[in-house]
Amino acid sequence: MYSLQFTAESSSNGMLERDFTVGGVPGVLWSPASGAQRAPLILMAHGGGNHKKHPAMSGRARRLVAGCGFHVAVIDAPGHGDRPRTAHDEAEIAELFRARAAGEPEGPIVVRYNDHLAQLAVPEYQATLDALQELPEIGTDGPVGFWGINMGTAIGVPFVAIEPRIAAAVFGQHWPGVLAEKASRISIPIEFDMQWDDEHISREEGLALFDAFASKEKSLHVNSGKHKELPRFEADSAVRFFARHFGGAVATSA
Amino acid sequence: MYSLQFTAESSSNGMLERDFTVGGVPGVLWSPASGAQRAPLILMAHGGGNHKKHPAMSGRARRLVAGCGFHVAVIDAPGHGDRPRTAHDEAEIAELFRARAAGEPEGPIVVRYNDHLAQLAVPEYQATLDALQELPEIGTDGPVGFWGINMGTAIGVPFVAIEPRIAAAVFGQHWPGVLAEKASRISIPIEFDMQWDDEHISREEGLALFDAFASKEKSLHVNSGKHKELPRFEADSAVRFFARHFGGAVATSA
Repeated sequence: MYSLQFTAESSSNGMLERDFTVGGVPGVLWSPASGAQRAPLILMAHGGGNHKKHPAMSGRARRLVAGCGFHVAVIDAPGHGDRPRTAHDEAEIAELFRARAAGEPEGPIVVRYNDHLAQLAVPEYQATLDALQELPEIGTDGPVGFWGINMGTAIGVPFVAIEPRIAAAVFGQHWPGVLAEKASRISIPIEFDMQWDDEHISREEGLALFDAFASKEKSLHVNSGKHKELPRFEADSAVRFFARHFGGAVATSA
Repeated sequence: MYSLQFTAESSSNGMLERDFTVGGVPGVLWSPASGAQRAPLILMAHGGGNHKKHPAMSGRARRLVAGCGFHVAVIDAPGHGDRPRTAHDEAEIAELFRARAAGEPEGPIVVRYNDHLAQLAVPEYQATLDALQELPEIGTDGPVGFWGINMGTAIGVPFVAIEPRIAAAVFGQHWPGVLAEKASRISIPIEFDMQWDDEHISREEGLALFDAFASKEKSLHVNSGKHKELPRFEADSAVRFFARHFGGAVATSA
């Protein structure tokens, strides 16, 4: 088992930010600055082309830490953030850009490449969770959630399908091809986001992935707009979803 | 134009409840007890077989009044609450119960009967809004929202389709047959609820009605469960929807 090494620490507006590595994989842990209270942990996975400290990640973390008092952790996906790209990464990214420029469907390339990354990332998420649960402010007895959209769903669905420690998850915006069979092995409460006018993922594909989850309790949030227009209020909704299941109060306006 | 007559008044836990009639139609207006502040108005319509003070109505009102400082009004639908049933009402209700007992589809009867009630109720909602806007604490310049699920959607969609004073609306759980064409004339922001395992309204029917709205900004909330299992947290979501559009802060937990 890899242990967790903290490599940097800073704090702002009541939120403690600690960089760490687990087995060479760089991550970040955000926590309430007020102290090492034991609290639920939300593991997140970032989107394709982004990284662990992308504003979408730090913005969600602020809502969860300041609003609910939770801990939040995210690691760089293989080939992303502070991690090197392999020749395979470079070739797949070039192929994606070529298809985009040619006006060809991106879905088959994204599905294939994300599946490759997920196979690498799932054991990394398991090792990260093992190491985080060694920290006294997290521990092994508190609830753990998972939140990942886009590539975060491509990594999260296979991860959650084999990881019994995850008690609730937010997914969305991916294709059912590789993931539907894995989703059918997930029965925890989920919230799932899709865009009604997504130019990459058809309505039928989005609905099919939502439908595949075996969860007795699941919610689908569909919004008008294209793939990248997921409304910011869905982040607030996801925070309330975790607060509802993990017992935190949410301090936000609207 | 009918004027509004207040017929009773009470107050509890910071919420003022005033019964009224407009042109003989009985209604209730809930307001912050703290005073006659000018504030947004949410018009609501109750579900089939219920009435203006059903716990679902008063519960929503408490969230909107105590949480946002809004005014909330609802009137009894024709044949419901304090209003007499006609022979036509009795016949349609008997037919619905007969179909239910026989295990036949309820949809065709509900759609037909609700359409009949909507034709009576739409001018009543218009007259009620006219009269409510005469009150100094509501006025004609503040935003007005509409919130009705089930039969409340059967009444609300034709009402909102011809009523330019409604600026945002929450609908859900009805069939597209009569309503889709009217929904196509609605372009204000909407939030729409449907149940993924509804035994009366198929997924295709629910999605078709959501799709019919011309609104640039629309959200669909699908939850697992049967027709009557719409989760209570969707009421909180609707309150936040109105607060987001009408500028109120929401004071709630989770």
